[in-house]
Amino acid sequence: MKGKGYTSSISYDSRLYREDIAGSIAHVKMLVMQGILSSSDADKIVSGLELISREIAEGIFPWREDLEDIHMNVEARLNEIIGSPAGKMHTARSRNDQVATDLRLYVKSAIDYTLMGIGKLQNSILDQAERHINVVMPGYTHLQRAQPVLLAHYLLAYFEMLERDKHRLQEAYIRADVLPLGSGALAGSPYPLDRNFVAKELGFSRVSANSMDAVSDRDFVLDYMYSSSVIMTHLSRLAEEMVLWSSEEFGFVRMGDLYSTGSSIMPQKRNPDFAELGRGKSGRVYGHLFGFFTTLKGLPLTYNRDLQEDKEGLFDSVDTVVSTLDAFSGMLNDISFDTDKMLKATEKGYMLATDLADYLVSRDLPFREAYGVVKVLIAYAQEANKSFDQLSLAEYQQFSPLFDIEVLKINLTSSLNSRNVPGGTAPSKVKSELRKARKKCRLPLESATNLGLKAYNHNRK
Amino acid sequence: MKGKGYTSSISYDSRLYREDIAGSIAHVKMLVMQGILSSSDADKIVSGLELISREIAEGIFPWREDLEDIHMNVEARLNEIIGSPAGKMHTARSRNDQVATDLRLYVKSAIDYTLMGIGKLQNSILDQAERHINVVMPGYTHLQRAQPVLLAHYLLAYFEMLERDKHRLQEAYIRADVLPLGSGALAGSPYPLDRNFVAKELGFSRVSANSMDAVSDRDFVLDYMYSSSVIMTHLSRLAEEMVLWSSEEFGFVRMGDLYSTGSSIMPQKRNPDFAELGRGKSGRVYGHLFGFFTTLKGLPLTYNRDLQEDKEGLFDSVDTVVSTLDAFSGMLNDISFDTDKMLKATEKGYMLATDLADYLVSRDLPFREAYGVVKVLIAYAQEANKSFDQLSLAEYQQFSPLFDIEVLKINLTSSLNSRNVPGGTAPSKVKSELRKARKKCRLPLESATNLGLKAYNHNRK
Amino acid sequence: MKGKGYTSSISYDSRLYREDIAGSIAHVKMLVMQGILSSSDADKIVSGLELISREIAEGIFPWREDLEDIHMNVEARLNEIIGSPAGKMHTARSRNDQVATDLRLYVKSAIDYTLMGIGKLQNSILDQAERHINVVMPGYTHLQRAQPVLLAHYLLAYFEMLERDKHRLQEAYIRADVLPLGSGALAGSPYPLDRNFVAKELGFSRVSANSMDAVSDRDFVLDYMYSSSVIMTHLSRLAEEMVLWSSEEFGFVRMGDLYSTGSSIMPQKRNPDFAELGRGKSGRVYGHLFGFFTTLKGLPLTYNRDLQEDKEGLFDSVDTVVSTLDAFSGMLNDISFDTDKMLKATEKGYMLATDLADYLVSRDLPFREAYGVVKVLIAYAQEANKSFDQLSLAEYQQFSPLFDIEVLKINLTSSLNSRNVPGGTAPSKVKSELRKARKKCRLPLESATNLGLKAYNHNRK
Amino acid sequence: MKGKGYTSSISYDSRLYREDIAGSIAHVKMLVMQGILSSSDADKIVSGLELISREIAEGIFPWREDLEDIHMNVEARLNEIIGSPAGKMHTARSRNDQVATDLRLYVKSAIDYTLMGIGKLQNSILDQAERHINVVMPGYTHLQRAQPVLLAHYLLAYFEMLERDKHRLQEAYIRADVLPLGSGALAGSPYPLDRNFVAKELGFSRVSANSMDAVSDRDFVLDYMYSSSVIMTHLSRLAEEMVLWSSEEFGFVRMGDLYSTGSSIMPQKRNPDFAELGRGKSGRVYGHLFGFFTTLKGLPLTYNRDLQEDKEGLFDSVDTVVSTLDAFSGMLNDISFDTDKMLKATEKGYMLATDLADYLVSRDLPFREAYGVVKVLIAYAQEANKSFDQLSLAEYQQFSPLFDIEVLKINLTSSLNSRNVPGGTAPSKVKSELRKARKKCRLPLESATNLGLKAYNHNRK
Repeated sequence: MKGKGYTSSISYDSRLYREDIAGSIAHVKMLVMQGILSSSDADKIVSGLELISREIAEGIFPWREDLEDIHMNVEARLNEIIGSPAGKMHTARSRNDQVATDLRLYVKSAIDYTLMGIGKLQNSILDQAERHINVVMPGYTHLQRAQPVLLAHYLLAYFEMLERDKHRLQEAYIRADVLPLGSGALAGSPYPLDRNFVAKELGFSRVSANSMDAVSDRDFVLDYMYSSSVIMTHLSRLAEEMVLWSSEEFGFVRMGDLYSTGSSIMPQKRNPDFAELGRGKSGRVYGHLFGFFTTLKGLPLTYNRDLQEDKEGLFDSVDTVVSTLDAFSGMLNDISFDTDKMLKATEKGYMLATDLADYLVSRDLPFREAYGVVKVLIAYAQEANKSFDQLSLAEYQQFSPLFDIEVLKINLTSSLNSRNVPGGTAPSKVKSELRKARKKCRLPLESATNLGLKAYNHNRK
Repeated sequence: MKGKGYTSSISYDSRLYREDIAGSIAHVKMLVMQGILSSSDADKIVSGLELISREIAEGIFPWREDLEDIHMNVEARLNEIIGSPAGKMHTARSRNDQVATDLRLYVKSAIDYTLMGIGKLQNSILDQAERHINVVMPGYTHLQRAQPVLLAHYLLAYFEMLERDKHRLQEAYIRADVLPLGSGALAGSPYPLDRNFVAKELGFSRVSANSMDAVSDRDFVLDYMYSSSVIMTHLSRLAEEMVLWSSEEFGFVRMGDLYSTGSSIMPQKRNPDFAELGRGKSGRVYGHLFGFFTTLKGLPLTYNRDLQEDKEGLFDSVDTVVSTLDAFSGMLNDISFDTDKMLKATEKGYMLATDLADYLVSRDLPFREAYGVVKVLIAYAQEANKSFDQLSLAEYQQFSPLFDIEVLKINLTSSLNSRNVPGGTAPSKVKSELRKARKKCRLPLESATNLGLKAYNHNRK
Repeated sequence: MKGKGYTSSISYDSRLYREDIAGSIAHVKMLVMQGILSSSDADKIVSGLELISREIAEGIFPWREDLEDIHMNVEARLNEIIGSPAGKMHTARSRNDQVATDLRLYVKSAIDYTLMGIGKLQNSILDQAERHINVVMPGYTHLQRAQPVLLAHYLLAYFEMLERDKHRLQEAYIRADVLPLGSGALAGSPYPLDRNFVAKELGFSRVSANSMDAVSDRDFVLDYMYSSSVIMTHLSRLAEEMVLWSSEEFGFVRMGDLYSTGSSIMPQKRNPDFAELGRGKSGRVYGHLFGFFTTLKGLPLTYNRDLQEDKEGLFDSVDTVVSTLDAFSGMLNDISFDTDKMLKATEKGYMLATDLADYLVSRDLPFREAYGVVKVLIAYAQEANKSFDQLSLAEYQQFSPLFDIEVLKINLTSSLNSRNVPGGTAPSKVKSELRKARKKCRLPLESATNLGLKAYNHNRK
Repeated sequence: MKGKGYTSSISYDSRLYREDIAGSIAHVKMLVMQGILSSSDADKIVSGLELISREIAEGIFPWREDLEDIHMNVEARLNEIIGSPAGKMHTARSRNDQVATDLRLYVKSAIDYTLMGIGKLQNSILDQAERHINVVMPGYTHLQRAQPVLLAHYLLAYFEMLERDKHRLQEAYIRADVLPLGSGALAGSPYPLDRNFVAKELGFSRVSANSMDAVSDRDFVLDYMYSSSVIMTHLSRLAEEMVLWSSEEFGFVRMGDLYSTGSSIMPQKRNPDFAELGRGKSGRVYGHLFGFFTTLKGLPLTYNRDLQEDKEGLFDSVDTVVSTLDAFSGMLNDISFDTDKMLKATEKGYMLATDLADYLVSRDLPFREAYGVVKVLIAYAQEANKSFDQLSLAEYQQFSPLFDIEVLKINLTSSLNSRNVPGGTAPSKVKSELRKARKKCRLPLESATNLGLKAYNHNRK
């Protein structure tokens, strides 16, 4: 509301202090190597920065609103601690390449945390899939019961979504993994810098190829925001189903106590709050992405103050997606499946209708005609209030002479077993996919960063 | 990134304490009137709540993260202060109607603040328009100089936009101005409440007509977010022009010292940071609107925990739009217009071409032909490197015999004066619009609320 | 894909031919009145335009891609038909004020159609509510059964939402109802126009007050897009519930044959396609709104070619919202409610728990304590596998001595009847709201436009 | 707007006929191989489909609205042509896996077209960069002149952005490159299919691993929409600058005749319509992305009719981004740079200020102090109305004794040459980046697809 203070960012960019200080230290080391700064000045600067880092970590750093941002707060404090050499830290550097460097470092570690969160949730999914490897449930299309599937097959669908999310993040990592420092304000630094040394110090795989692009590029922020929007889309679908399955009508799951709440007024309620909240939070993550697209639209080169808007939405997206992955992992670990109810739901609703049609096709009836026969058969059965297994062979044969004794062997088990194409719900296939999945989600963090680097080396050669 | 704590909202909903306590006090008063609560219990509750209100205002309230939200924090603290009667405050009320009431109270006052901000900015606009009532500048289409206009006319265009923004907010106010309290969890309260009394106490114009709608409706949040998105759109356009006009190339304005900054590396720079930042902030406000639309999409009735997401984006939208209106008012007050440069820019570029075409039309040439004549004339003048006023009558007549001595009287002043239709840039019209505008933006807050109420009474009868 | 053709709009703006021709005719009439155009020229122009209008309506108009837009197509054809006077039609007018006029006329009638669609859907809602006035169903919070409500009460919640949608559109109408013609390219016309006459001819309530604003303002497009986004939000909620209720698990409704489809492979399916598609279409309407916000962000005054993007998204929003309202009205008319299933669902799940707590409160137990008592009571009942009405008074009294014989009278009917505050689900209240609702939705189109005009007169005085 | 017809998609999905027919042919071939279909039936089906393909290509196919979509239109027509065997084409296939296959084929070729468009624009950029390799212009931050840069350096910044866009699309290609066919309605096909054969026939690199995911996954649509949103962001920035540079105030470029238009009323205008329209079209592409995110949010597994909304926004995004890339390539090819104006703009505004500060730093003044000295120096020069090169050494030395004769050698050339870090604007660096860039954008289409496949093989091993 302020007036003055409008342009201040210190309330949120203080969060970047680690990245800012790491960036400054690497920069200063390089300045020494290149003969631009004396060792003694550098030593003072580095130990001053290390002290500041500790002060901030311990909560005793004297933050000053009037200094507006993390960079000026650090520099001013350094000046208090070590005096005049503090003024040399900014040699051969601009705020523009400095802030881009900080934010890329931040995004890279945010991706690592997010990948860990995905790995954790994937493990919860696999644990439940293994624990319920023989459980059958109705598969739905249009929220109508359609065909029987394994619960483990259903769960593995979410594993696959998260697997794509990992790839998306790893690719975002590769594009974030570029050092802008050395680009100066926009035209490149006039000092004889060793940019590759700084890159190596800070863990970047390469240096930017164009200084004007480097200081105005925020694609890496969009990439993170987009990747997390897709994650939240996937989680919103899982959440929707957990809410549905928690209802009295479905009754497929019961949330653990930590992941549901009662009502302030209705003591009998057991609300799936975590699932609902996670579903609702998809909105904010989409909103940040859209907001930042808007901010970037139509900006001329190079740096414009509009770009200060690159942080809050990003930070909130990271917090939201990481905490939701974590919460959903816990929620899944703590869920109880009512496998009896699932089974019972599978037995109603003529879910083996397709199997009957396919049976007729195997007797050489064109599919469209087989489909027609079964449709009439179902109408008959509904009228007679019978399920398929209550029909006699004679009744079947009223609808087609192609029905023979084999038709009576069609049941839940035969239906499941028959779907043993790759990707199908046949138990053998599901088990084999489960094994592959387990292999893919070991050690998420390490493999993530490594994969990133390897993929980069590949793509760039 | 918590785990537990995922569902907590106290870090942001503490901001609603005034509304929450006011709502409770009104509710309790009514319970006494209706014989549901004893006066002595009510007195204890009210003085306890007033104490809590002071504690929060003074920053000494013992906030507890584990109590998750403002409502439970207040109730628990009340229990510490007054003991058992605290438990009676929630009689005949649910969290669902309580939180909807708090948020509507908040939105109503947010609208008032925003209207004040608009009024302030409109006044800054009018001040500058009056101060520069005779200044001429180029009007642009496609960012090409098109026709001369008064600077005051240009400024009044923004006044008009803000005027529509006021109407949009006033209408949002009317829809927010409905008391949900008494709707219970979803089905209505089973107590003999006097809902109209509570409405009156809290300044609501009417009570909700359907309890299920009342606890799940957040249209009023969307309405605010939309209205502020349109405001930010308007401000982003003004900001764009202030950035353009601050450039060396345009050079039409010079920002005041408080509203521009230097560069960390380029001492000669004078960056229009406020304008840029305000332009960039349009993104976050759009993002919040879109995010909340997403959250609401597909939610079944009635209350779902997803709705907890109704606050942070809203609060940030309010903060952003109110602070940007304020900042832009200050920026405009402190701006200097380089009226010489504006005038000079008006003299180049054949801006009177349309006047010439209209002159020929007045001599009965069909417009399309007149347009053609002037196009050729301009090509000739460009070639000869002459402006219109450097052309002789003979030269004019090479292109059409319809030109006579009167054509030499066409100049900036004649052009401006000729556009005296309603809404045109003729000085007389601009002055009259300026007077009307002044009348409309006196006492914005008071008139806003009043207008809201009057309009309501009108629409509902 | 084209290359050239990139800037062409004729493939979609041909849709504005009625508005364009009406605008031209009104303009020409006024030019005659003001002595700018001869009667004989005007007569030729008008009859030429009328011929063109018929040609387009009959599908025999010779459209030309190379003429890019509707305006040039009409003008060029007029020239073919009447020759040279065609060139005079554009006197005292610019493409900028012309296109803004056309689009405002379009939006005004789009609002009328949308209001008719809302009225139609509201009538379907009220028909079903009246038809099922005594049907009880579970009310949900968090998709958990919470308290019993009337189906009519539930339906009226959607009536209320649509009622707000009507108000939003009526207000959008007021802001659209301003004539820009006469603003010229940006500075106002230099001819002595009678703008109020044109406004009257075209049915506008007033003329624009600032020419620069008038040619660059597209708020009225945003207003429509926003209003329809809110409508789609409401419809997506209804759609979600219709999908849920169509599932075997809920089984509350059965879609009519026209509003559901079978599966290409599963003959037993009955998919609620209309509800799903309507839910999904919320996305495109939101998308158009946000797309157009983006387009407007940061545009300098006045007209820029970016504004050509104001049409396709708008047209698609109108088509989508009008067809969805219509489809949902049909869907609701054709739906069957399984009122037995609804009733049965109401009997399970301890939905009268709040009534028990309120009963204890009426015996003077603080609400929070009553809540605690009932919570324990439910745990006992669940353990004993009993519903509330299977508990004896003695069993009740184990949990509180405040229970007496009256507790056994608490049932579905008493619960419903007790909630007779305004807005509550008590049958008497629901019936009275139903009567009020019926009154509000007679003759939607006429009242809409009228209301718009009346509200305008009010707001502007 | 129809009523019935609401669920029809034939008006837009007819566009998928190539993909649909290719998919059917591959499916049918495989059915023969696996002994599920006879060769003679298959031959009839294939030649019937080939006939249909020709009919559609030639515009003589008898489209039927009542058959709702492309799949039913093709199947019904096939039945007319070949009779009963047509009914066997759908054996072992569901609409759900069929439509997902069609759309993935479409997206894959859309990516190829988009990559070709990027390659074309990159080539236009490089052509201009090479043609103007020695041209100097002001580099801007905050739209203020900041430091001199090469025009080629500026242009290469856009090359870099597009290079990232290529990578994003190539990754999207990898994720789209998965065959869903064989997943049946949701549970996998019960026939002994050879899915890998079909994949190979259709050019897919792999088959989906989970049938439930395969029929409900539309991530690949999001990926395309996101990638094109980022492209449009980059193009909107370029467009903004082309609009700015076309203004009289900047005057850096003159658009070719094909890429600018006159005004309907102002004959002197030269409007950069292509740039404006391209800038505005960023909105629609963002809008489609956000619309589709909304549609997907909260959808339970597996297929829901909401997913029908996956096409129109996608198609329009492809059309928009491909045509804009093409239009911008043409626009750039046809642009003239006013290199004199650029140079002149570089000479004003104390753009060498940073060079002066760096000079002092090289004389061992801490950067912050050097910055302060130059700030005062500029104030002096402004007051004296002198540019830096008009100052004498004595004047310099008034502000710091560290200035010596070398300071007079600081000029545009020295400034540019000094910035020869990697990524800097020094001519030698720019030339070397230009050479690298040329190598990267040969044969975009071929390399794109190849790169996609290679990267896939890498990532999946």
